[in-house]
Amino acid sequence: MWTDVMTGEFLGCLFLILFGGGVVANVVLSDTKGNGSGWIVITTGWGFAVMIGVFVAVSTGSPQADLNPAVTLAKYLLGVHATLMDVARHVIAQMLGCFAGAVMVWLAYLPHWKRTSDAGLKRAVFCTDPAVECRLGNMLSEVIGTVVLIFGIGAIVGSGTISAGLLPYLVGMLVWAIGLSLGGATGYAINPARDLGPRIAHSLLPIHGKGASGWGYAWVPIAGPLAGALIAASMWHLLL
Amino acid sequence: MWTDVMTGEFLGCLFLILFGGGVVANVVLSDTKGNGSGWIVITTGWGFAVMIGVFVAVSTGSPQADLNPAVTLAKYLLGVHATLMDVARHVIAQMLGCFAGAVMVWLAYLPHWKRTSDAGLKRAVFCTDPAVECRLGNMLSEVIGTVVLIFGIGAIVGSGTISAGLLPYLVGMLVWAIGLSLGGATGYAINPARDLGPRIAHSLLPIHGKGASGWGYAWVPIAGPLAGALIAASMWHLLL
Amino acid sequence: MWTDVMTGEFLGCLFLILFGGGVVANVVLSDTKGNGSGWIVITTGWGFAVMIGVFVAVSTGSPQADLNPAVTLAKYLLGVHATLMDVARHVIAQMLGCFAGAVMVWLAYLPHWKRTSDAGLKRAVFCTDPAVECRLGNMLSEVIGTVVLIFGIGAIVGSGTISAGLLPYLVGMLVWAIGLSLGGATGYAINPARDLGPRIAHSLLPIHGKGASGWGYAWVPIAGPLAGALIAASMWHLLL
Amino acid sequence: MWTDVMTGEFLGCLFLILFGGGVVANVVLSDTKGNGSGWIVITTGWGFAVMIGVFVAVSTGSPQADLNPAVTLAKYLLGVHATLMDVARHVIAQMLGCFAGAVMVWLAYLPHWKRTSDAGLKRAVFCTDPAVECRLGNMLSEVIGTVVLIFGIGAIVGSGTISAGLLPYLVGMLVWAIGLSLGGATGYAINPARDLGPRIAHSLLPIHGKGASGWGYAWVPIAGPLAGALIAASMWHLLL
Repeated sequence: MWTDVMTGEFLGCLFLILFGGGVVANVVLSDTKGNGSGWIVITTGWGFAVMIGVFVAVSTGSPQADLNPAVTLAKYLLGVHATLMDVARHVIAQMLGCFAGAVMVWLAYLPHWKRTSDAGLKRAVFCTDPAVECRLGNMLSEVIGTVVLIFGIGAIVGSGTISAGLLPYLVGMLVWAIGLSLGGATGYAINPARDLGPRIAHSLLPIHGKGASGWGYAWVPIAGPLAGALIAASMWHLLL
Repeated sequence: MWTDVMTGEFLGCLFLILFGGGVVANVVLSDTKGNGSGWIVITTGWGFAVMIGVFVAVSTGSPQADLNPAVTLAKYLLGVHATLMDVARHVIAQMLGCFAGAVMVWLAYLPHWKRTSDAGLKRAVFCTDPAVECRLGNMLSEVIGTVVLIFGIGAIVGSGTISAGLLPYLVGMLVWAIGLSLGGATGYAINPARDLGPRIAHSLLPIHGKGASGWGYAWVPIAGPLAGALIAASMWHLLL
Repeated sequence: MWTDVMTGEFLGCLFLILFGGGVVANVVLSDTKGNGSGWIVITTGWGFAVMIGVFVAVSTGSPQADLNPAVTLAKYLLGVHATLMDVARHVIAQMLGCFAGAVMVWLAYLPHWKRTSDAGLKRAVFCTDPAVECRLGNMLSEVIGTVVLIFGIGAIVGSGTISAGLLPYLVGMLVWAIGLSLGGATGYAINPARDLGPRIAHSLLPIHGKGASGWGYAWVPIAGPLAGALIAASMWHLLL
Repeated sequence: MWTDVMTGEFLGCLFLILFGGGVVANVVLSDTKGNGSGWIVITTGWGFAVMIGVFVAVSTGSPQADLNPAVTLAKYLLGVHATLMDVARHVIAQMLGCFAGAVMVWLAYLPHWKRTSDAGLKRAVFCTDPAVECRLGNMLSEVIGTVVLIFGIGAIVGSGTISAGLLPYLVGMLVWAIGLSLGGATGYAINPARDLGPRIAHSLLPIHGKGASGWGYAWVPIAGPLAGALIAASMWHLLL
């Protein structure tokens, strides 16, 4: 049932952002117990966020567990998803789930927004921004990150010998690796819903002392991952 | 046999707190080899504490390995545990195990209590306290953490494809993730026995230069996780 | 088909260096999000780089997934690879893949080369250099690192009880361990192609403000790993 | 064949100390690439050292892979090893392997001994010393650490559902956990051969500017783990 799939994608994305946004909140907001604990904490947290999101999606109705419009697009291009309606249902559920997850992060760290003075750090809990402004470089970084995400998932699944139960774990490790190795330039959105959903939440929520939601950059973590999906799907099609 | 189950819950909780309290002792007490090694060490240690606790419980009589009154409550609400007597036996064994584990931590770091001057750090080895005092925010954080713990365990088990032997490992990774992402506001008790048992130990043990046991806050890491269990069980019931 | 094997080795090595060089870039280049995040980040990133490289190689045509001329040499000495032509094909594909991966790293961190003033740090993204100049000590360190890599892979495979799907993960953990424990003296090339391919890329690419490519040291991470392969293959032959 | 078992124990212990001593060398010796990278690096390195040591021992002749006289003693008390001659063979091979591993660490970090001025740090690469001198506390810490090591291994194996191939990995994670949580007071020898073998190597090797080998403390990491083995074996016998 497509409502099951939408439930699974919604809940999976909610957990994805609750853990993913949560770890950034813990590291960057003032007076938390994890304040300043650095890149190893952020990337480990995001890796497990994906693992948990996939487990939740799989067990609540979405066995495919895309959790990412770029992954959904690549699967559509490769014929895994049959119709554009199917794509639309996935993306809508993903966007809503990412939005809801961001609201949960806001609640889980409720007393810390007022304590944090830097509005940029508060926004970083929700959505990505580039370490250095450079549209070409930023796009390249997001494209490369998404290509290796999608190609890497394909390689793990395609190696043909993983028991299904370990796939969420290994995909989580893959995302841990992407963060460690390729996340340093743009904060590795590599997922349009992961960035846009929480960015909308940032613009709507009554966050204490928040600044702008960074809409000028918002198209990069959408366009980059979608372009990456196109490239990864083409590579996969060519090779296999 | 219910005595076997109580033995398993007792020993599992003893190991849980020995490792979980131990890692905090190593990081916060003065002159330890791990002093100041930060949030990555604390959360990794707690993740493995759960993994080991589950292995110990499973192999010494409690195949369910709840180790947490909130988990026991959720399972009662979902019909996994049949009677309130069953719940009581679990919780009593869990409380005793957590108390005993805290005594072991005190012994394992015996020379370091005198060396540490900050009484708050000494108490932090035993029980949680909020990063920022805010009862609503603290409750929210504990509720959210417990919901994702219980829902996450359900999702891992419910995905249906994990070989039983890896469940303790994956549940440990889930708790690692909760610590990284959601532990920064209240220190993630997410388990009434984990907080109350060691808090009682703190109040009774002749710890050098100890301060108050923080009873004013003690109800939050009890009420929050129990409320979280209720919500998680309701969600699970609704969905599946 | 040998073209399949070359494709697999090429793509596996491309991913290996993209993740491995990428994590160094993130840690050492200026103004990245992972700047200064230290040895735990570098070694974790390289461990997963190997895991992902193996998954990619296996799923795109090279089930052996050598990704390393020293591994290929050891397998030739032990009769796994039959002919020198076979060895040559592997090594050529590995060199090209490592070169291509280094180009991708350069692109993924495009805005950061100009921001970084230290030319030595920029070179460190591509190839290794010794912590202390001492040819005997540096050689010993590379030889020991490569012996344990090859002997360790043999031990993991030879234990005979790992499901094939977990081999890439466990080999990645082995490389994580080599970095943590044995990488501190020379930066653990333990792979001639991993060092030489990106070093050539460094010498050819128009990297902003780059310095010399360190050719005086370049023979050590070639000779050391090849000598290590000889020793490991002999040990394996003697023992089993 | 008992010569096979001795080969396996010897090589397993050699790898154990090469990785375990190696990670300490990387963190504490001057001018290494991992200098000052802290407790997370040391404990992760030791966890994987055990994993790799077990894989090597299993695949070269010792399927039991004790690698530790305390483990061998516990197994003798529980009837896994039949004769005292069997115990002696294990312990001799373990001592020789740990000695040889320490020599390899010395070679792998050859240029760094002269660069390091603190003789205590140099000794720390080889053997343990207490964070705070307190014989009762130090003994307690080693006893507790060894009890949980042996009881924990029993629990992992006894849970009965782990595929054999993952046991070395999970035992490595157990040791990672012991280091994180219980290693902060004495540096967690929890293994008489791991401490005594390298301590003898320290006293014999021509290490530049070395100090005393700390023989006054040397009995604690022997007596503590052996007492722990006794307690763990008794607990196991009582319970199961």
